[in-house]
This record gives sequence, C-alpha cells and structure tokens, in this order.
Amino acid sequence: MQTGFLLFPDVTQLDFTGPLQVLHRLPGATTHIVAKTRDPVPSDCGLSLVPTTTFADCPPLDLLCVPGGFGVDGAMGDAETMDFVRRAGAQARYVTSVCTGAFILGAAGLLQGKRATTHWAYHDLLPLVGAIPVHARVVRDGDTFTGGGVTAGIDFALTLAAELRGDDIAQSIQLAIEYDPAPPFDAGSPERAPADVLDRMTRRYGDRREAFTRAVLGAK
Amino acid sequence: MQTGFLLFPDVTQLDFTGPLQVLHRLPGATTHIVAKTRDPVPSDCGLSLVPTTTFADCPPLDLLCVPGGFGVDGAMGDAETMDFVRRAGAQARYVTSVCTGAFILGAAGLLQGKRATTHWAYHDLLPLVGAIPVHARVVRDGDTFTGGGVTAGIDFALTLAAELRGDDIAQSIQLAIEYDPAPPFDAGSPERAPADVLDRMTRRYGDRREAFTRAVLGAK
Repeated sequence: MQTGFLLFPDVTQLDFTGPLQVLHRLPGATTHIVAKTRDPVPSDCGLSLVPTTTFADCPPLDLLCVPGGFGVDGAMGDAETMDFVRRAGAQARYVTSVCTGAFILGAAGLLQGKRATTHWAYHDLLPLVGAIPVHARVVRDGDTFTGGGVTAGIDFALTLAAELRGDDIAQSIQLAIEYDPAPPFDAGSPERAPADVLDRMTRRYGDRREAFTRAVLGAK
Repeated sequence: MQTGFLLFPDVTQLDFTGPLQVLHRLPGATTHIVAKTRDPVPSDCGLSLVPTTTFADCPPLDLLCVPGGFGVDGAMGDAETMDFVRRAGAQARYVTSVCTGAFILGAAGLLQGKRATTHWAYHDLLPLVGAIPVHARVVRDGDTFTGGGVTAGIDFALTLAAELRGDDIAQSIQLAIEYDPAPPFDAGSPERAPADVLDRMTRRYGDRREAFTRAVLGAK
C-alpha cells in the first residue's frame, strides 16, 4: 500500500504528524511525503518538514491524505499543487483529509456530494466545495474519510487503520502511542469551551473566513 | 520565554510535534528546535525534521523539552547530546520530557529524587535514573514536568501551557487544535487494552528493554 501525505507551506504540522505516526506503522504500507520540490517545507510552528518525493516523482497512491492549516489558501491557489491533488485523488482508493485539508480536496472536486467534516471554525463553509457538512470528529462516506480540526487527525487515522488492517492492528498502534487521552480541560469543542474562550477564538477565525472563502472560490 | 526542544536521530516525531503545536502558540514564547547540527534529523516515521539551531548556538532556555523514541538509546550514548541536556537543563526553569525522553533527562541527572512518568512499557525502569515512577499521564514535581507515552505529550503541553500562561490561554489553544479526543477504541493504556493486544506489544517492547537498560546505565 502506497500512502501519500501532501505538504505545502504553512501547513498545520500536527494535522500531518498525528496521522503520520499512526499510518506509518501499518504493516505493508510505504509512506510518501509529497511536495512541489524536495526542499524542506515550512510549517506553522517554526518547524520545517522534509518531503520524501515530489509531485512529479510520486508513485500512484492507494491512500491520499491532505492536512490543513493557514497555508490551505495558498495551496488552493497553486495550480501545480491542485493538479497533483486531482491526479492522486483520482488514482487513490482512499481520499482523505484532516482539518481544513478538506477544502483542498473539495476545491479539487473530490468531495462533491460527499458527507465530510473539517475544523469547527470553517465547518459551515463545506458546501462551498459541494460537500455535505457532518458534525463528527471523523466522517466516512464510502472510501472518503475526513477528520475534524488538528488533533482529530489521530482519531481519524486510528479509524482508517482499523478499516485498512483490522481492529487488532489499530488497537496495537493505539497502545504503542499510549493514546488514552486525558485533556486537563474540557475546552476542545465549540459546544463545551467556556463562552469567553469560544468568543475570542470565533472572532480570531472570523477575521480569516472572508479571505478563506475567496481562496476556496478562486482555487486553481 | 525561550523554549527548546531536543532533536536526535530516530526520535518518535509525535512526542515532539504534539507539544510543539501547543507550546509554539504561547504568547511571548520563542521556539528553538535544537540538534547537534542544522542538518535534517531523521525521525521514526520516514519524516526528517529541520532544527532551527545547534547545541553550540542555542541561547539559554527557560523551558527544555526532551522527546523520546527508539533513538533515546543513541542519544544517551552521545556525549555532545548529553552535555547539551545537562547544560540546558541546569539553566532552564522548566525541565520537561515526553515518553522515554524522561530517560535522557534522568541519565543527565535531572530526575534525581523527582516524581516522573514515561511510556508504559518502560515505566518501571525509571528508578534506574533515580526517579520515582508515578502512574499518571502528566506528572509534575516542582518545575519538572513529564508526560507519558507519545500522545500524552498533548495533555502534558496543555498542562504546561496553563501553568505558564493561565487556564484561559491553554483552553484557547485546546479549542484551536480541536482537542476533544474521541478514540475509536479504548486500547490506549495497558490497563484497558484487550489482553492479546497488550501481550503482543509487551513482548515487542520486552525484546528492547535489555538493550535499553544497558543504554541507560552506559549513558555518557
């Protein structure tokens, strides 16, 4: 099985590194980290990530995973990136995303009529790309799997691991990465975050939604 | 605040990238990703990570965070790495680790008499470095914070974020990264994993414990 993760500048690195930690451990899987060139790709955290291959050299993928982040706007406006996503997405059996990576899939025409999820702050914009928004941490529609914001990528990847290799393998990986979460606060969803925290973050994302919408509608 | 993450070959990348995603967002924090050289550092997942500075060039840190992984054996056997950890750990107010990174801190003498945690499969070995094993996902002993295996790094980092900048900031970051975990299985701890899964993984780690113990005792 050939698994490919898309990288682009200003990717939210945990959207990618969470699922990578899980899916890289699947028996029989070869992982490709794919970008326009082999140069290190700057993420949102001061950390640059080194691709293993390029759009031109990437073999046909069985599983395409597209992470999100503030760099999604730029990725959607880049013809080479979108051409790769369309091509790899048409070949892959499993077409998947984490966080706002859903909009890259969607802008490439890969979520038309599909039930999907994305980061809570952009969730209601999914119809812009023809997707049907579903409020869940992981959403499956046939062989299309989408995860919610950032850390949802770990739940998403374990769900996918179970689909691909069985519950037993997924549970072994979960135990290996000691995924027995115990958040110190119950603030991780808009439904349960304290009102002032939600207000502040909603305003912060609100400032970005207009430019993001333009980027989705103007995707190459 | 100067925050520094140690990198070394064959680090479990999620031990590092989880906390990085949280701690990089702390207001007023500057993040340093520190390794022996500026060359990309290969992780356990086929992904190489680019340091931002070297042991020689890293400024004094307020917070040192040491991730774990199979590469811990090699890191403990490397005099330059251990010299850096001793020096940075002596200067930093907050001395912290995720997963088996605790043994790097411990081998550098930084966990002597401290309550600490680490990955479940190595937890009982903490007394080898003078630490007092505590079964918890995040353990605090004064300004020493340790997290359990791999994904515990996210809970660890949110706990640390609350300590450093208050609950409100930690909750804002938690909401931004949509950390509202919903694992598809309840297999993330040795207490609750299915017996056959636990048996298999215990045998797999068991094969490594002897070499690991030698590496801890022979640390530079």
